[in-house]
Amino acid sequence: MNLNGKIYKKYLSPLDLKDGFIDMSHGAGGRAMAGLIDEVFVKILDNKLLAQKNDWASFQAPNGRMVMSTDGFVVSPIFFPGGNIGSLAVHGTVNDVCMSGAVPLYLSASFIIEEGFSLSELVTIVESMADAARKAEVLVVTGDTKIVERGKGDGVYITTTGVGVIQDERVNIAGSNVEAGDKIIVSGTLGDHGVAVMSQRNNLDFQTSILSDSAALNDLVSKMVKEVPQIHCLRDPTRGGLAATLNEIATASEVGIIINESVIPVDPQVEAISEMLGIDPLYIANEGKLVAFCSPSEADQLLNVIRTHPLGKDAAIIGEVQESKGQEHHQEHREHHIVRMKTLFGGEKIVNYLTSESLPRIC
Amino acid sequence: MNLNGKIYKKYLSPLDLKDGFIDMSHGAGGRAMAGLIDEVFVKILDNKLLAQKNDWASFQAPNGRMVMSTDGFVVSPIFFPGGNIGSLAVHGTVNDVCMSGAVPLYLSASFIIEEGFSLSELVTIVESMADAARKAEVLVVTGDTKIVERGKGDGVYITTTGVGVIQDERVNIAGSNVEAGDKIIVSGTLGDHGVAVMSQRNNLDFQTSILSDSAALNDLVSKMVKEVPQIHCLRDPTRGGLAATLNEIATASEVGIIINESVIPVDPQVEAISEMLGIDPLYIANEGKLVAFCSPSEADQLLNVIRTHPLGKDAAIIGEVQESKGQEHHQEHREHHIVRMKTLFGGEKIVNYLTSESLPRIC
Repeated sequence: MNLNGKIYKKYLSPLDLKDGFIDMSHGAGGRAMAGLIDEVFVKILDNKLLAQKNDWASFQAPNGRMVMSTDGFVVSPIFFPGGNIGSLAVHGTVNDVCMSGAVPLYLSASFIIEEGFSLSELVTIVESMADAARKAEVLVVTGDTKIVERGKGDGVYITTTGVGVIQDERVNIAGSNVEAGDKIIVSGTLGDHGVAVMSQRNNLDFQTSILSDSAALNDLVSKMVKEVPQIHCLRDPTRGGLAATLNEIATASEVGIIINESVIPVDPQVEAISEMLGIDPLYIANEGKLVAFCSPSEADQLLNVIRTHPLGKDAAIIGEVQESKGQEHHQEHREHHIVRMKTLFGGEKIVNYLTSESLPRIC
Repeated sequence: MNLNGKIYKKYLSPLDLKDGFIDMSHGAGGRAMAGLIDEVFVKILDNKLLAQKNDWASFQAPNGRMVMSTDGFVVSPIFFPGGNIGSLAVHGTVNDVCMSGAVPLYLSASFIIEEGFSLSELVTIVESMADAARKAEVLVVTGDTKIVERGKGDGVYITTTGVGVIQDERVNIAGSNVEAGDKIIVSGTLGDHGVAVMSQRNNLDFQTSILSDSAALNDLVSKMVKEVPQIHCLRDPTRGGLAATLNEIATASEVGIIINESVIPVDPQVEAISEMLGIDPLYIANEGKLVAFCSPSEADQLLNVIRTHPLGKDAAIIGEVQESKGQEHHQEHREHHIVRMKTLFGGEKIVNYLTSESLPRIC
């Protein structure tokens, strides 16, 4: 605690962002942590609220209903074709917030970093976050950093939380609002993110030119909601893919769902790799796609809005919602909110949840 | 993907919450994850917003300024005298939000769980969160669960994010609002949390009856703000202890600080253990204490409000704020926002940031 030149020099000299590494002192609440926060997070994410360094950020409450969502990101590897954990952490939470029809406004970011992680990679990740946030027009206004010992983490994990506002009172989007007769639209090809990440895993020996679809969907959603405010449900089919999303919604809305394999958009490369791996693209995570449910009279209009947007050019109506069958005859009615698919071969099969753990740490 | 009894039975039968363990499938987006979310998080945290399972929660925007804060919790060990990572994750973020003078309203919770973690411990942790949230009158309205492989985590890490509202327009609390002449109040004894956690570390061979002070401070703060709305600054001295907090504020407000060792409240047991470990209680983390800065004319009134509250009975005025000295003579003026302490022996010493990493993973 002596006021000598050495200690100050240590603090005042910048971090070695080119060749340095994270050590436990970067999480200990002292000078090293203060330096890391200043030189990496506050500097790169660069906004007035974050710069106040109050452990919190304050902003005027918007008019309307607010929406809050959180997601932890543990993707492995941290860098993948089309993005990295930083851009993904912004896109993922922006997307979760806007799937309510809300305009995302502010994000928080909490980092759990493993001792020994390279500072230059951390800088790249935070730069990607800043870039993704700028493009999505959200601000990362508050954050936290914890350091864990080597072998107690895996490079870096990031949890982002977003808040936003639903401005139009007509908007009422929820997993439980889907009705029999609704049309189901997906905004583009399925499985790109999962295949891009898997292509980088050490134990898989294939190479593809597939990029993750990781992208912020809030601009697309704002145009959709403006044109068709009575959308019944929006979801981004991430972990568990479209199959999990449709099953969740069928259960929440107590309906059946039928989709048509022949019109589900899948990139031919993704199709081929999935087949090789024995995984159906329906189960593979997406990070820049959405599924929309709306009444049949509005489906063509909504499809048109989506297709006009750069992130929705491959959009398609892939199926529709049906009454749940036979519900009254069974005690366990959950069994009967079934997702079915008309196959390419003219048959019909059940699209269940995936029961295995085929794709861990995809996001 | 066949609709057979076995698959359904697997999903419909409850998790083995008594003897079961987390495996990778609990994070894979399928039935096991849906089961975990239903049976543990939604059931125990029990509120309407969470039960909607929309990946987001929606609520009416309150009137006033909103506040948002986030914190990751990596405390080791996960269970410690006086709490566990679950209660700590609620208290920590509730406290960060209310240090703005806001009333905390809603929390999100993101779990990163290591493969092999016991479900019964997870249940205990989530129950502690639910209990802490109930007592603090906040709702955990949305969440996320990720599973990482054995050796890529350490049991469980939790990131909570909170939002709240500042209702009184007169409230203007910030690290940069401190003025020369301000009195500095701490709400109670220092170092209890850090010592309680350290007492459980395997490599330390002492036992104490010290409990963590982990507690939600929002009720105390609401009473303080009601009585003295013009508080200049509030902080909870967590990582880095009171020393880090005072240094941060001195820098943010460009002032000097002088505190008086003889009036700083420290439990005798904490004092003894700190001495044994060679750590000053000023550097040890607290999780249920606050530091308040207010004008001298309001200090006695504010101290009285704090002492009347169960969480503030040991509160004391420990020092005051001074003009920063000699600033004009130096290029690097940061050096001169110094925290000084009058010692028990009548001398004066500099209270600097801690430069080492003595207390990793204390929160």
